[in-house]
Amino acid sequence: MNQPKVKVGVLGATGAVGQRFVQMLQGHPWFEITALCASERSAGKAYADACTWTIRGDMPEHLRNVILRPCEPNIDAQLVFSALPADSATEIEMAFAQAGYGVCSNARSYRYDADVPLLIPEVNPEHIQLIDVQRRKRGWEGFIVTNPNCSTTHLVSALHPLHVRFGVRKVFVVTMQAISGAGYPGLSAMDLLDNVVPHIGGEEEKMEKKEPHKLLGFFNGAEIDYADMVISAHCNRVPVRHGHLEAISVEFAETPDEAEILAAWRDYYPLPQQLQLPHAPQPAILYNEAPDRPQPRMDRLAGSVPGMATVIGRLRPDPLFDYKFIALGHNTIRGAAGGSLLNAELLLTQGYLGREAAALAQTLQVA
Amino acid sequence: MNQPKVKVGVLGATGAVGQRFVQMLQGHPWFEITALCASERSAGKAYADACTWTIRGDMPEHLRNVILRPCEPNIDAQLVFSALPADSATEIEMAFAQAGYGVCSNARSYRYDADVPLLIPEVNPEHIQLIDVQRRKRGWEGFIVTNPNCSTTHLVSALHPLHVRFGVRKVFVVTMQAISGAGYPGLSAMDLLDNVVPHIGGEEEKMEKKEPHKLLGFFNGAEIDYADMVISAHCNRVPVRHGHLEAISVEFAETPDEAEILAAWRDYYPLPQQLQLPHAPQPAILYNEAPDRPQPRMDRLAGSVPGMATVIGRLRPDPLFDYKFIALGHNTIRGAAGGSLLNAELLLTQGYLGREAAALAQTLQVA
Amino acid sequence: MNQPKVKVGVLGATGAVGQRFVQMLQGHPWFEITALCASERSAGKAYADACTWTIRGDMPEHLRNVILRPCEPNIDAQLVFSALPADSATEIEMAFAQAGYGVCSNARSYRYDADVPLLIPEVNPEHIQLIDVQRRKRGWEGFIVTNPNCSTTHLVSALHPLHVRFGVRKVFVVTMQAISGAGYPGLSAMDLLDNVVPHIGGEEEKMEKKEPHKLLGFFNGAEIDYADMVISAHCNRVPVRHGHLEAISVEFAETPDEAEILAAWRDYYPLPQQLQLPHAPQPAILYNEAPDRPQPRMDRLAGSVPGMATVIGRLRPDPLFDYKFIALGHNTIRGAAGGSLLNAELLLTQGYLGREAAALAQTLQVA
Amino acid sequence: MNQPKVKVGVLGATGAVGQRFVQMLQGHPWFEITALCASERSAGKAYADACTWTIRGDMPEHLRNVILRPCEPNIDAQLVFSALPADSATEIEMAFAQAGYGVCSNARSYRYDADVPLLIPEVNPEHIQLIDVQRRKRGWEGFIVTNPNCSTTHLVSALHPLHVRFGVRKVFVVTMQAISGAGYPGLSAMDLLDNVVPHIGGEEEKMEKKEPHKLLGFFNGAEIDYADMVISAHCNRVPVRHGHLEAISVEFAETPDEAEILAAWRDYYPLPQQLQLPHAPQPAILYNEAPDRPQPRMDRLAGSVPGMATVIGRLRPDPLFDYKFIALGHNTIRGAAGGSLLNAELLLTQGYLGREAAALAQTLQVA
Repeated sequence: MNQPKVKVGVLGATGAVGQRFVQMLQGHPWFEITALCASERSAGKAYADACTWTIRGDMPEHLRNVILRPCEPNIDAQLVFSALPADSATEIEMAFAQAGYGVCSNARSYRYDADVPLLIPEVNPEHIQLIDVQRRKRGWEGFIVTNPNCSTTHLVSALHPLHVRFGVRKVFVVTMQAISGAGYPGLSAMDLLDNVVPHIGGEEEKMEKKEPHKLLGFFNGAEIDYADMVISAHCNRVPVRHGHLEAISVEFAETPDEAEILAAWRDYYPLPQQLQLPHAPQPAILYNEAPDRPQPRMDRLAGSVPGMATVIGRLRPDPLFDYKFIALGHNTIRGAAGGSLLNAELLLTQGYLGREAAALAQTLQVA
Repeated sequence: MNQPKVKVGVLGATGAVGQRFVQMLQGHPWFEITALCASERSAGKAYADACTWTIRGDMPEHLRNVILRPCEPNIDAQLVFSALPADSATEIEMAFAQAGYGVCSNARSYRYDADVPLLIPEVNPEHIQLIDVQRRKRGWEGFIVTNPNCSTTHLVSALHPLHVRFGVRKVFVVTMQAISGAGYPGLSAMDLLDNVVPHIGGEEEKMEKKEPHKLLGFFNGAEIDYADMVISAHCNRVPVRHGHLEAISVEFAETPDEAEILAAWRDYYPLPQQLQLPHAPQPAILYNEAPDRPQPRMDRLAGSVPGMATVIGRLRPDPLFDYKFIALGHNTIRGAAGGSLLNAELLLTQGYLGREAAALAQTLQVA
Repeated sequence: MNQPKVKVGVLGATGAVGQRFVQMLQGHPWFEITALCASERSAGKAYADACTWTIRGDMPEHLRNVILRPCEPNIDAQLVFSALPADSATEIEMAFAQAGYGVCSNARSYRYDADVPLLIPEVNPEHIQLIDVQRRKRGWEGFIVTNPNCSTTHLVSALHPLHVRFGVRKVFVVTMQAISGAGYPGLSAMDLLDNVVPHIGGEEEKMEKKEPHKLLGFFNGAEIDYADMVISAHCNRVPVRHGHLEAISVEFAETPDEAEILAAWRDYYPLPQQLQLPHAPQPAILYNEAPDRPQPRMDRLAGSVPGMATVIGRLRPDPLFDYKFIALGHNTIRGAAGGSLLNAELLLTQGYLGREAAALAQTLQVA
Repeated sequence: MNQPKVKVGVLGATGAVGQRFVQMLQGHPWFEITALCASERSAGKAYADACTWTIRGDMPEHLRNVILRPCEPNIDAQLVFSALPADSATEIEMAFAQAGYGVCSNARSYRYDADVPLLIPEVNPEHIQLIDVQRRKRGWEGFIVTNPNCSTTHLVSALHPLHVRFGVRKVFVVTMQAISGAGYPGLSAMDLLDNVVPHIGGEEEKMEKKEPHKLLGFFNGAEIDYADMVISAHCNRVPVRHGHLEAISVEFAETPDEAEILAAWRDYYPLPQQLQLPHAPQPAILYNEAPDRPQPRMDRLAGSVPGMATVIGRLRPDPLFDYKFIALGHNTIRGAAGGSLLNAELLLTQGYLGREAAALAQTLQVA
């Protein structure tokens, strides 16, 4: 007997991240798209007419003629995925949360608010309890949950299993980030052909001060106690389509040996994997033994759910810190739409979308 | 009145670095090519027939029909530039030095020998005195002088003015290196399109342990006292034709403020610039104020002698070290052939190519 | 009840095309790999040790430790797929055919022999009857069947539905071919970054004189009467990983209107599609209506079997010929390994691999 | 004795073509920039503040602080170079011509007007006499002269020497055009990495119907009799920074042999070369004998004036036409700003900028 799926909307459905939401929600066992929302300029048009589809494959056939709606909280859905730019997200997401919708947002607008979960389900699932704080404080019926910046996501994913065992104290990271991270049209072809741009506005600040400390922080029942570590980040844009590569050096509170680090990654089996969430990669972290991997083109889709795993390689001692290694992750899948979607899957299993929805999670186990 | 120029040969003239030597020696005020030497496979052929010219512009017309000679020390020249691969350089360069030739080598074979200068004329010109140690110890009439690896060159060039004033203690560097650094054919197009390769064999070792400490070391009259600093390096290959970009963080013995660092670079006026060597860029270091520079395509040829300057930008505080910044330099010009050539220009002015040759240096001043 | 699959070997399993054979044969309903053969240099090693895997995804786990065999006709298989280079293919493929193996070859060695089928199953399936001529003439127990060059494949695939209806008389084609067509390592990264190379050795000759006329020719019971048409080709290499793009202009014996051409493509339903061969894309030809498609990155994997369809777009009148349009196809899938594999699927259904094997084809229909 | 130079303005000085004008006018022997004009948004700002410099090298130091003026015909100049987009060029260029300025325009607005010269100085210098027709008809004191589209320029440059000797009747051309042809920011990096876009809006029409026939036409004293030839063009965008590559096939009225074609190119010595105009490359056409040249990266700057020559290679018979070959030219130099500049140099020598200005041309001969 088929239970009805949870109805969801996509805010900002025509952009690069919006398209990923649409693509990843196709055939989802728990969610079904009932509304595609866009800016006023696009609202009223058919999706196929308003949207330049830029990801491989074609726009899902049955959505081509769906009429885009404005981003207003009067759609037939329980949950919305927000791919809005930060400037419009602030107001719109609040309107939806006030009106009782759950909002899984990829925007940065609310990430740093004390009562808004900044969530990677493998890393800090217990932070979703901030939703209760948020509702109490703001008087909303709905809620907002956010996922981190694409570069932060894979850095923290790689560090988390090490942090819980050995205590990460210092992190040095240099990113080589893909062009899709800048959206579409994003960067000019003139700037990226035969070139590297050693600057991404605001990115270093997010990595150094704002996101990892919250993600790795401790929820004390009322708020997050930020993790105590120092991070230095250089961010660069390279001529790669998808996949952020990060050269990382780490110093620990208690220095492990290499085998212990490899074991920490290998044995990592956090909640989303235990719950077998549909978009939880099994395993969450892949370690590639080759001397020159991971590489963006070869590894960005590695693992059981393409684009959702973090791939690590080249663990070796560091003359200044304890160890250095390379991490890679897909920026528009796990680093954006896929991150939000996994958040929604976690919320569903934890009852934040209602009892009926939570029952859907059982269907997976049976199958 | 025209003085005769110093006759020079190029060893390994058909390869990527050999071509750069040939290109840069065109119209040189002090040196003229009298012999092009190549492997046995190519020796006996016309240069144009044996060599696939891969750098922009055409092979100099008057060299097209020059017959390539084997790499044997019986050529009519006083000095040879070596673009040989390390495996054949060891024996051949020694043969030339024994036979009385000066050898300016780009190979790594002798770089780490205690009595062989590893030279950047701006950084450690006094190390050429090791030639006397070398001759005494080895009984050679000629000598070997080497230049460092392409990544090391620009790292040390950027650090040198700071080291002499503030004492560099710790350096963290992540390189994004151009494909021309791997020679021709070098890397497969399949490996670099839409990709980054986070590994370059042997490169991190050279930067961490072997070269910077010698370059920044002190010549005590008999040998080099290596500089006391700790360096950590991650090396990556990116889809850029020419120009190695380096994200650098530094800790000093005495922490300067930003203005003092900028002044150290701005006021840098080392020996080659004072001597107005033909290939000494004026100034040696360029600081670009733009928030997203230097960039390889835009800046690799910046300055008064294209490809010879080091370009720096984005100086800012580092949460883990004192400061971080970006440095860029051309890898096959200053980082290879141009480095050797500047070494030769320094040697000439310092009398290591004889009194008559040294007199040539005067001609420049007049002009 | 499971019937045993047909045992197949891969000749040249370590190269770029060999890897595609291995990848595409994974989970094949009719074929199973029982032998991986390679050059003497690699024979005796484990597959994972001898092969640099260059296509996305990982080498199939269960083949990593398979020991490579020499390319000698003593393997336990009925059919071999040959990814050998032409120079070694000539002798080895003959040895296998003599020894009774069926050989589906991607090499050019036998393509132009009068008694060897040059086959695209959609275009000239009746040419497989040449196998009988071949066996009679050569006294072989086995046979050799070939597939065309990657550029020819998609040109002829696009032309075939038009040729049968309107008679193609003149064809002008300019190719923009992907780098993977040159194998691995193939082209130097130095040659393709920020560049186009307007020359591919032997390619224009294959397209102008050798392949299309045979493919579109008529089997008269004894030999092929070559099609009567004139073709002019310019071939270029562009910085694209996979997917050959072709700008094509055509003149017909009887000039159709645009709607008739579109209908010819739309209604195209040749034998492999009717037979529902496992690797036959449904439909064989896709027409993309967008004004700027097909594009390699967006469309090379389009259709029901990724990489097997030919994608066409931009049909419009031509001032010199009748019409012009753009065609795109994947060069290492349909243009190489996938072409051979589809040939093998056709051979199986037509009884050339024996009655028992032919029965396997029924299983598909049921499923 | 120094004669004063001709004062010139640049309209649209902040864009990609405007920057080229500025770069190429540096140190010009006859012209000096006295005004930089831009859109209202930029007017009033310093040039360095309003302009993102995207071409290699830096903005000329002495222009950094020049205040941009609006595009109004009240500047202190005799001649203006227009890098305006077509939509604003129509009105602005007319205003300048009415007000007495000479206008050398790169825009398409007036190219097809019967009384406006569409000019390549090597090809149709006699067309400048249309200026007299133009002035008579329109009552302007100034005038407008245009240069063709970047793809047309090099096609016609390659054909002209052949047309005058053998009569070009049919031309088939497929272009592979560089991204800089789309301006800055122009194309998205997402669209060009690992891709080719087989469509450039309006480009095929310009090449097939509008420009070559006028350029190769005959000025009968009152108007241009268009050349009688049929052209078919497919236009594509490839991931190359600068340099349009064109695969060309030609049919002649009288078929020459290969030697005659090569001689026609070799012996080509048109007016700008005879007059030794400062930006006339010597020779105008370069033929590269290598089997795989010209290539954009290697040859786009070939010749005596970088970016101004047309480079040709791979002449060979064509099965459908008489001959085929490859042509290459720089799109933003000869194909845009350099084309306008050479037009201006021709106008000066022919007296269209006044007697005093014409005298400047003598200085060159002496030097």
